Amino acid sequence: MKLVGTESQRIEAGEFVELVCYGERTVCTFKETIEAHSREKETNIVLALDLFLPDREAQLEKSMAILESVHDNICAVKLNRQIVLPLGLYSGADKIVARAHGLNVPAIMDAKINDVGHTNAAIATCYFDAGFDAVIVSPFVGWEDGLQPVFELARAKSKGVLVLCYMSHKGAAEGYGQMVLDSKTGKPKAQYEVFADRALTWRADGLIVGATYPEKISRIHEIVKDEISIYSPGVGVQGGDIEVAIKAGARYLIIGRSIYSAGDPREASRMFRERVRKLIFKG
Amino acid sequence: MKLVGTESQRIEAGEFVELVCYGERTVCTFKETIEAHSREKETNIVLALDLFLPDREAQLEKSMAILESVHDNICAVKLNRQIVLPLGLYSGADKIVARAHGLNVPAIMDAKINDVGHTNAAIATCYFDAGFDAVIVSPFVGWEDGLQPVFELARAKSKGVLVLCYMSHKGAAEGYGQMVLDSKTGKPKAQYEVFADRALTWRADGLIVGATYPEKISRIHEIVKDEISIYSPGVGVQGGDIEVAIKAGARYLIIGRSIYSAGDPREASRMFRERVRKLIFKG
Repeated sequence: MKLVGTESQRIEAGEFVELVCYGERTVCTFKETIEAHSREKETNIVLALDLFLPDREAQLEKSMAILESVHDNICAVKLNRQIVLPLGLYSGADKIVARAHGLNVPAIMDAKINDVGHTNAAIATCYFDAGFDAVIVSPFVGWEDGLQPVFELARAKSKGVLVLCYMSHKGAAEGYGQMVLDSKTGKPKAQYEVFADRALTWRADGLIVGATYPEKISRIHEIVKDEISIYSPGVGVQGGDIEVAIKAGARYLIIGRSIYSAGDPREASRMFRERVRKLIFKG
Repeated sequence: MKLVGTESQRIEAGEFVELVCYGERTVCTFKETIEAHSREKETNIVLALDLFLPDREAQLEKSMAILESVHDNICAVKLNRQIVLPLGLYSGADKIVARAHGLNVPAIMDAKINDVGHTNAAIATCYFDAGFDAVIVSPFVGWEDGLQPVFELARAKSKGVLVLCYMSHKGAAEGYGQMVLDSKTGKPKAQYEVFADRALTWRADGLIVGATYPEKISRIHEIVKDEISIYSPGVGVQGGDIEVAIKAGARYLIIGRSIYSAGDPREASRMFRERVRKLIFKG
């Protein structure tokens, strides 16, 4: 059992997968890794790098430039399929992940994995091989021959799994917001409460809950407490409010267009960070 | 209004997007296109080309070889993310799509699209630009700022949209099989029935229902009748039975491992086709 260096030395080592922790274990979970980055840098902002430009070279260049200009103000970067599909996972997206790691920023793949087991395993294998530190999955596909192989693969490789719980768009109410009959009690229950329960059983590293629905954040936080961190997209362009989301229980804010489409992305990210610093890291 | 050629001439033209139809309209829907291919070739088999090999060049070569050897016996090919992620959409998967079109085989992308509107639009744009004739979507994400942009894009480009209704794996029961309270009546209803209703409202080109759940196929066929074609994955390795699935109402069978992992894929596809020919095209 090794006890290695200070927290900042460990973070500077940039080895997210094999990051050595204090105490009894030798490998951090993704939940612990991002928490360490967040405290060290005093920011809870996850940059959603979702730029979609017709020219693929320009898309890669601009994505890299934004990442570099804002990296001091973020604790992780999240890539979406509008980066991976045009640039290619192994011919562009992986370069962004490598650059993020070079800047000491963990990378999350917003894959919303939702297929059958052997396909999910292949998808997760590809993203982990390309360097991603965590993947996002959709719990609607279920466990058996669904998400089970993804969680097993993630654990074997010390990667993270974040579970969708309530998305940020208007149509989310049609699925995440519907009432379902609980399979054990037969009583009505909100779909997102069912998902929060599943995430606890599955020992997920995080839950995604739209900042546009703060009352859902509160309810989900009541269920999972601090066992699972809540990540909230939908701040800014989509209408979510930072202060409200954090007070409701969001630990991380996922911000995209309000940073990368700003006239000065660095300044935009700095201003967001200042706001969250007062709320979360004031002590 | 043009009336052009015979059905087989139109099919030989290989122009799935701009295929000219008889009658009042000048462009076919994807439902009509695949139906024409199916009748012409007397097969309802959609090849699921899901090969996942550690060597990417070998994966592309073998996928191409299988497609070429079985193309006489299939009415469409379906690619999954275990092809697109390793090979790249514009540096491998698009080559398979082009080869499929060269062989007069339409191509479906099993993307299970499930993100917010602007991301869904970007994903669908990428797949359509790479040549795919249809995409598969997850209805759980809802319509408003969810799937609406995908359907609009597909219509503008004369592409198809197939909707997941009940997947073929065991965990499907946790989501697709759950009971939900109908948002209009407040009464309990199976999730897959809600999805079938939505697919009718959205005018989807097809519904995906696992061949492993024939009683669900029957019920969904009762709801959508012949307005929406049912595609059934899960035949063979996953345990679904061809005859039972077709009798229950499946129009197309999606078959992967039982063809591409067979010692002789061409022979395996021919035998599957013989079985379905007797059931569907005997008259």
